[in-house]
Amino acid sequence: MRPMSNPMRNKQFPFTPACRTLQDVLTDHDLAALGDAYTNLLYSLYLSTKTGKPAGARANSYILSKALRQSGLRELMPTRVDRHKQADAAESLLVYAWLQGLTTITESVEALTKHESAAEGFSSLLSDAKKKSRFHR
Amino acid sequence: MRPMSNPMRNKQFPFTPACRTLQDVLTDHDLAALGDAYTNLLYSLYLSTKTGKPAGARANSYILSKALRQSGLRELMPTRVDRHKQADAAESLLVYAWLQGLTTITESVEALTKHESAAEGFSSLLSDAKKKSRFHR
Repeated sequence: MRPMSNPMRNKQFPFTPACRTLQDVLTDHDLAALGDAYTNLLYSLYLSTKTGKPAGARANSYILSKALRQSGLRELMPTRVDRHKQADAAESLLVYAWLQGLTTITESVEALTKHESAAEGFSSLLSDAKKKSRFHR
Repeated sequence: MRPMSNPMRNKQFPFTPACRTLQDVLTDHDLAALGDAYTNLLYSLYLSTKTGKPAGARANSYILSKALRQSGLRELMPTRVDRHKQADAAESLLVYAWLQGLTTITESVEALTKHESAAEGFSSLLSDAKKKSRFHR
C-alpha cells in the first residue's frame, strides 16, 4: 500500500521528498532540518498551553530520542545511532506527517498536552504518524 | 472596533494575550518568544519552497527588522529600539495573527514566495496582519 496523502497538501508543499519506506523518512537529513523548526513550534505551543502564556523553547534531543524509543521506532534504526540522530529521526517523521496533511498543528498540540510528559506526548504523535503514513515497511 | 477574531482559534490557543493595541502586540515579550519559533518555521518552509527540498533556518533580525520598516510598523515603536527588538516586534505580530486565526501557515508561505526577497515577503505578511487584526490604534 502506498502512503496515504492529501493532494492539497502535497500541492502546497511540492518539496516533500518521495519516501518509499519509514526508514527513508527517519534518516532524511533535509526533513530533519525542516523538522527541527516544525518540532520547536509544536513544543513551544505545548509549553504555552501548559503555562498559560506564549513561550518559546527548543525540544531537546533527550525528550525526542526518548519519544522515539517509547514509540518503538528506535528499533527501525541502526544500533549505533546516537541520541541526536534519534531526535532528528523523530523530527523528520513529525514534519513528514504534517507536510503530507496527515495531521495539523492544532491537533498535534492538543494531543501533546493530554499526556503526562512531553516525551510521552511526542511518542504518541510518532505512533500516530507511523500509523497514518501507512508504510508497509 | 475590537480586533476581529476566530473563536475556534482562541479556544484552541487560550494563552493568546488580550492585546488592546497594535503596540501591545509589537512589544509583548512572551509573544516574541513564541513568534520566534513560528517565524523560523515560516522561513524554513519559504526556503524549502525556493530550493525545492526541505530546509531549516532561522529568520535573522536583519531581514525581519527590514520587513518591519518596509511595512511602516517601525514608526509605531520608540526611536531607540534596536534591530533585535524590531525583529521581535515582527515575530510577535506574525504569530499573533496566526493565533487569532487571521492567517494560516500555508497561506503565509504562499504569500512569502511571491515576493522578490524574504524581507519584502515578511513586510507584506506584516501589513496584512495589521489590516486583518483591525486595531484602531
